[in-house]
Amino acid sequence: MLSVLLLLPLAWGNVAFAAQDALPSWNDGAAKQQILDFVKKVTTTGSSDFVPPDQRIAVFDNDGTLWSEQPIYFQFFFVIDQLKAQAPQHPEWKTTEPFKSALAGDLKGVAASGEKGIAQLMAATHAGMTTDEFAKSVNQWVSTARHPKTHRVFTEMVYQPMLELLHFLRDNGFKTYIVSGGGQDFMRAWATAVYGIPPEQIIGSQGELKFELRDGKPVLLKEAKVALIDDGPGKPVGIERFIGRKPILAFGNSDGDQQMLEWVASGDGARFAGLVHHTDAAREWSYDRQSSVGKLDKALDEATAKGWTVVDMKKDWKLVFPADQK
Amino acid sequence: MLSVLLLLPLAWGNVAFAAQDALPSWNDGAAKQQILDFVKKVTTTGSSDFVPPDQRIAVFDNDGTLWSEQPIYFQFFFVIDQLKAQAPQHPEWKTTEPFKSALAGDLKGVAASGEKGIAQLMAATHAGMTTDEFAKSVNQWVSTARHPKTHRVFTEMVYQPMLELLHFLRDNGFKTYIVSGGGQDFMRAWATAVYGIPPEQIIGSQGELKFELRDGKPVLLKEAKVALIDDGPGKPVGIERFIGRKPILAFGNSDGDQQMLEWVASGDGARFAGLVHHTDAAREWSYDRQSSVGKLDKALDEATAKGWTVVDMKKDWKLVFPADQK
Repeated sequence: MLSVLLLLPLAWGNVAFAAQDALPSWNDGAAKQQILDFVKKVTTTGSSDFVPPDQRIAVFDNDGTLWSEQPIYFQFFFVIDQLKAQAPQHPEWKTTEPFKSALAGDLKGVAASGEKGIAQLMAATHAGMTTDEFAKSVNQWVSTARHPKTHRVFTEMVYQPMLELLHFLRDNGFKTYIVSGGGQDFMRAWATAVYGIPPEQIIGSQGELKFELRDGKPVLLKEAKVALIDDGPGKPVGIERFIGRKPILAFGNSDGDQQMLEWVASGDGARFAGLVHHTDAAREWSYDRQSSVGKLDKALDEATAKGWTVVDMKKDWKLVFPADQK
Repeated sequence: MLSVLLLLPLAWGNVAFAAQDALPSWNDGAAKQQILDFVKKVTTTGSSDFVPPDQRIAVFDNDGTLWSEQPIYFQFFFVIDQLKAQAPQHPEWKTTEPFKSALAGDLKGVAASGEKGIAQLMAATHAGMTTDEFAKSVNQWVSTARHPKTHRVFTEMVYQPMLELLHFLRDNGFKTYIVSGGGQDFMRAWATAVYGIPPEQIIGSQGELKFELRDGKPVLLKEAKVALIDDGPGKPVGIERFIGRKPILAFGNSDGDQQMLEWVASGDGARFAGLVHHTDAAREWSYDRQSSVGKLDKALDEATAKGWTVVDMKKDWKLVFPADQK
């Protein structure tokens, strides 16, 4: 009996919350421990690192951090499907880039048209729709379209360990936000149900909107003009604009998250900056410095230099997708 | 005993919550009753008008709705004081409009320069500052500057009845937002302490921001370019962008709030649209259709036509400012 009691504090220190593991899909290791330690110190009353609940703000990138992003950002599959549906009314697309490549499913051809080409595709498929019409079309797509490799609906390709982390943070008084380069309206159509994050806490790239009365009934029309590219240096801008204070925890997975992590890490007091490193070719994908999607190079160097938490997907996660659970 | 019991339901119906009046600075009358009735029906489980707590979103204009706005928007006094402090470095302002008029306190002269002139003044005084520097300068100003007529600090010129309404709504599970044409960063510097509304629920007109590393430390710089004019048709745009769902209650006071009220009133189910009508020359100001600041003309006609609640400041409010309390 005595020996059991002596062991208790040690076990507690190493694997906090072990009695009821809040992160059951995480293997014991540095990443999990750093998360548990951080949450413990900012929520312990009297601790010098204590943070009042209203300031416990956590921000998460979406593509590659909460769900997969290979072989290309999932929103792009939606855009291609929209293009195909509208192609009969646009015979000129057959011979004009970037439409030609997009319709042929030639992702490299589309990528060659650069940001401008992608903006053209977005404008062609989204502009002129009301926000309600757009949400409906995303909802319809997301409930039926399937990933070309896994043949799962895309919302089944979210990461179970990250779902647990979102819940764990909220259970500890955190307000969880998405801060993503993906389309804000696209994410808001499905992410509330999937992640438990309300629309007002989903920040993404966004276009201008126009207020209009249609038969006396007000609508908001999506316009072709970009209002915010919520990526790279645009992420701290999105955070300041939408939240107005510095979060204490940020999670990303690519160089597009570097400035967000720098911004969050620069605050006074305890801060947590984390990266998901895609190291798991068998269960998901393995890529970093050379990838055209979700490139992780400079941010990985900075994480090493500054001691940010790097999650090794292969080593740190017991399972990847919810359906992998036995 | 029986007669008392018989009277109870009637008394409850007419003056709900009378036992502990949640709106003590409101006189009994149509406006107060409409507010109480609305809150009761959307919060009563089982009622056909019941709204779940996460959808109880209330939006308030600021200038003229939560605090005064005469003889000119209070933020403008801040801009003038900033200009004066910087004038020694800008001798050319003495002879160039709109600077000349602003420095002379000639509000009509400034108004003559239109929106473009006001944008020039904002750019001259705000652009290039970091968000932290700007917040500090607003805080310093708001704790010392005084209104030219009342000689009160501006944050004492908030409306006590509206403070009570904000509290009453939050006590009933509402999330309260500000949606104002005023500067978002300007309001966020003081409005959280004064109204109990966190920065992420304060939406206003805003400029572009730029992320920059200064000696390795990240900062956000305010730029001269406008990102959103959160006024008139810009208000539903701001609501959609920041909140992503339609509020069920909106309060404004001018034509700049008309589209916000239309947007909120157009939702399915019970909705509340309210206007503060400035009718009280003795205790505050009296103005509407002819005013250059806070003009209330078209929205007043629409309120009458559609049965929106119009608060007659003189008749409906027992007192105006918190300091008026005995």
